[in-house]
Amino acid sequence: MLLEKTLREIGDLDQTAMETAQKRLDSLIKPPGSLGILEEIAVRLAGITRNPCPQLGKKTVIIMAGDHGVVEEGVSVAPQEITVQMLPAFIAGSAGIGVLAKHAGARIVVVDVGVAAPVDIPGVLQRKVRAGTGNIAVGPAMSREEAVQALEVGIQVALDEIDSGAGLLATGDMGIGNTTPSSAILAAFGGYSAEEVAGRGTLVNDQVMKVKIDVINRALETNKPDREDGLDVLSKVGGLEIAGLAGVMLGAASRRVPVLIDGFITTAAALVACKIQPKAREYIIASHLSGEQGHRLMLEQLGLTPVVHLNMRLGEGAGAALTMHLIEASTKIIHEMASFDEAGVSDLEEDKILS
Amino acid sequence: MLLEKTLREIGDLDQTAMETAQKRLDSLIKPPGSLGILEEIAVRLAGITRNPCPQLGKKTVIIMAGDHGVVEEGVSVAPQEITVQMLPAFIAGSAGIGVLAKHAGARIVVVDVGVAAPVDIPGVLQRKVRAGTGNIAVGPAMSREEAVQALEVGIQVALDEIDSGAGLLATGDMGIGNTTPSSAILAAFGGYSAEEVAGRGTLVNDQVMKVKIDVINRALETNKPDREDGLDVLSKVGGLEIAGLAGVMLGAASRRVPVLIDGFITTAAALVACKIQPKAREYIIASHLSGEQGHRLMLEQLGLTPVVHLNMRLGEGAGAALTMHLIEASTKIIHEMASFDEAGVSDLEEDKILS
Repeated sequence: MLLEKTLREIGDLDQTAMETAQKRLDSLIKPPGSLGILEEIAVRLAGITRNPCPQLGKKTVIIMAGDHGVVEEGVSVAPQEITVQMLPAFIAGSAGIGVLAKHAGARIVVVDVGVAAPVDIPGVLQRKVRAGTGNIAVGPAMSREEAVQALEVGIQVALDEIDSGAGLLATGDMGIGNTTPSSAILAAFGGYSAEEVAGRGTLVNDQVMKVKIDVINRALETNKPDREDGLDVLSKVGGLEIAGLAGVMLGAASRRVPVLIDGFITTAAALVACKIQPKAREYIIASHLSGEQGHRLMLEQLGLTPVVHLNMRLGEGAGAALTMHLIEASTKIIHEMASFDEAGVSDLEEDKILS
Repeated sequence: MLLEKTLREIGDLDQTAMETAQKRLDSLIKPPGSLGILEEIAVRLAGITRNPCPQLGKKTVIIMAGDHGVVEEGVSVAPQEITVQMLPAFIAGSAGIGVLAKHAGARIVVVDVGVAAPVDIPGVLQRKVRAGTGNIAVGPAMSREEAVQALEVGIQVALDEIDSGAGLLATGDMGIGNTTPSSAILAAFGGYSAEEVAGRGTLVNDQVMKVKIDVINRALETNKPDREDGLDVLSKVGGLEIAGLAGVMLGAASRRVPVLIDGFITTAAALVACKIQPKAREYIIASHLSGEQGHRLMLEQLGLTPVVHLNMRLGEGAGAALTMHLIEASTKIIHEMASFDEAGVSDLEEDKILS
C-alpha cells in the first residue's frame, strides 16, 4: 500500500549536513545568527535535503479541492458551487493563488479530490475519491478507506511533481465550508472547546458563528474522533482536500523535499499528517500567520513559527506561495555570501558577544 | 535649498486613486479583505503613485554608510574598521544585502556619507560629509549644518535613482555602533528610558549592555535634544548614515515613490524624517520586525505594521529587500486577478457576512 510504504520511508533530518550548514553560516560576514529564522530555515533545508548547501530547484503549489456536506448547516457565506467555479481561475492565473504562484515562479497543480460537482476542466487533475464529504454534524465525513484513498491521491501527486524536478512544494486548499472541519480537527487533537477553535472564516457574522460553534460541538459529540488516531480524526471530522493535503506532506517528507503549509486548512492537514507520522513535522515549513483565530493554536501544536504576518484569510496557498521567495533566500545566503576570511573582514570581539 | 524644496513637495495621498483601488479589490474573486495587509499596501501604493493600478517599475536598495565616534566608549562587539571593510562585499554581492538585493531583482546603491576611513572603492558613491560623528556621550554627533548636508545627500541619491526609473526604494544601513544613536533617537522622541530602548545589537553581552545604557543616558543628558525638533535630535544624538537615510525617505516621498524601511537604524531614520515632515509617513512602508528590542516601539510610534517576522538583526536593508517581493505581489493582485463578474463566480451571501 502506498500510504504504508510512504510512512516507512520518512526518515530523520541529516544532522551532519545541518552541522556543516550551521558552521558555514557562522563563518559568513554578519554577526552570528543575525539572519534569524532565515538561518534556521537554511539549516533545516540542509537536514531535509542531506545537502549542507541546499539547492531546491523547481517549485510547485499543489491545490487540493473538495466539498463539505456540512455546508447544508449554513456555516459559510459562500455557496458550495464556488468550489468548482474557482478552479478555472486557478489554472488561468486570475485567482489569488494564480497570481501569487506566477509571481513566485512556481508551477500550479490543481487536483479535484472531492468536489461535489462534476469537474471536467482542462488542467485540473481528476482524482475524485467521492463527491464531497458527509455532513460531519450528523455522521462521519467519509469512511476510513476513503480517507486512505484521498491521502494516497496527495502522496502520488507530490511524488509525481518531485519526479518532474520540484524541490520545494507549497500547499493550498479550495473547499467552501472547510474552516469548520479544520476547526473540528484542531479541537479533536488539541482538546479545545468549539469556541476556542471556531473563527470567522470568510468573515461570517455572529449568527453564523453561533451555528458554526454548534456544528463543531455536534461533530465532535456525534463522531467521537480518537485523538490518538490521525486517520480516525481525518475520516470522521475532516475533509477530502484536507486528506489530500496531508498526503502531499507525507509524500514530500518521504522524498526529503520541504513543503510549505499555508493557513488554517493546510495546517489542519499538517496536524493530521504529523499524527499519522510524527517525523513528517521536520519537513513541513510554516509560512504565514492567518487571520483565522485558531491558526495560532495549530502552529503551537506543531511547534512551527510563521514568518509572514499579513492577516490574510484566503486559503488557496496564497501565504505559502508568498513565502517561497523567503525560503529560496535562505539557500542563497549559504551559496553566495562570503566568509570573514574570504572577504578580508576583521573578526568580531568574541569576549563582548553574548554567549 | 534642496531640503526645504523637498519638504514642500511632499503631498498627501491621492484619496480618489485609493478609493478606486479599494473598489477594484472588493470586486475580485476572494472574500472581501481576505488578502489582509496585502490589500492595504496595494491601496496605499495607489494613493502614493496616484494610480489605482500601481506599477512600481525598477527597484533599488540604497545603503548609507557612516561611522560613530561613540564606539570609543566600547558599545559594540565589532571594530570600527568593519564599516569600510563591508562596502566592497555590498558591491560584489557577497554580503547579506548583496545576496538579498540580487534575489529581489533590485539594484544596489552604496553611499559613503560619513565613513571614518578614506573610501575609494569602485561603485561606492563618495558623498562624505565628515569622517564619522563625534562621540555623543560627550557632545553632539554633528553640527546642524552637517545634518542638513547629510539629509541632502540622501535626498539627491533618491532623486537620482527615481530619475533612472526606480519606483520602489528600500533603505539599508552600515555603521558599526549605530544601534546606540538609534536608541538615543527613540528615547529622545518617545520619552523612553535608556533601558527601554537599548538592545543587544550584534548580541553584546551584559557588561557591554551596561556600558550602552550608560552611554545613552549620558548622550541625552549632555546634548538635551529637543524632541519637537527633528533636526536637533538628528544632529545631537544621531548619525550621518541615519541622516542620509532620512533624506532618502524624504526624497522618495517628494516624488511619490514608496520607500521600505528595514530594521532598527532605518526606522530611527524614519522617526527623524517624519518629525521633520509628518506627511512623509504615508510613503514609508514597514518591512520586517527586527530582533532588536526597541524596534517594536519605533514602529508603534510611526503607526506602521511589519509584515515579515524573521527575528533578524543584520541591518544593511536585508529585511527591506526581502519584503520587496511582497510589495510587488500586492500590485499584481490588482493587475491580474479577475472579478466575480469576469470569472463567472457566484456572489457571496451578503446577509451572512460580518458588517
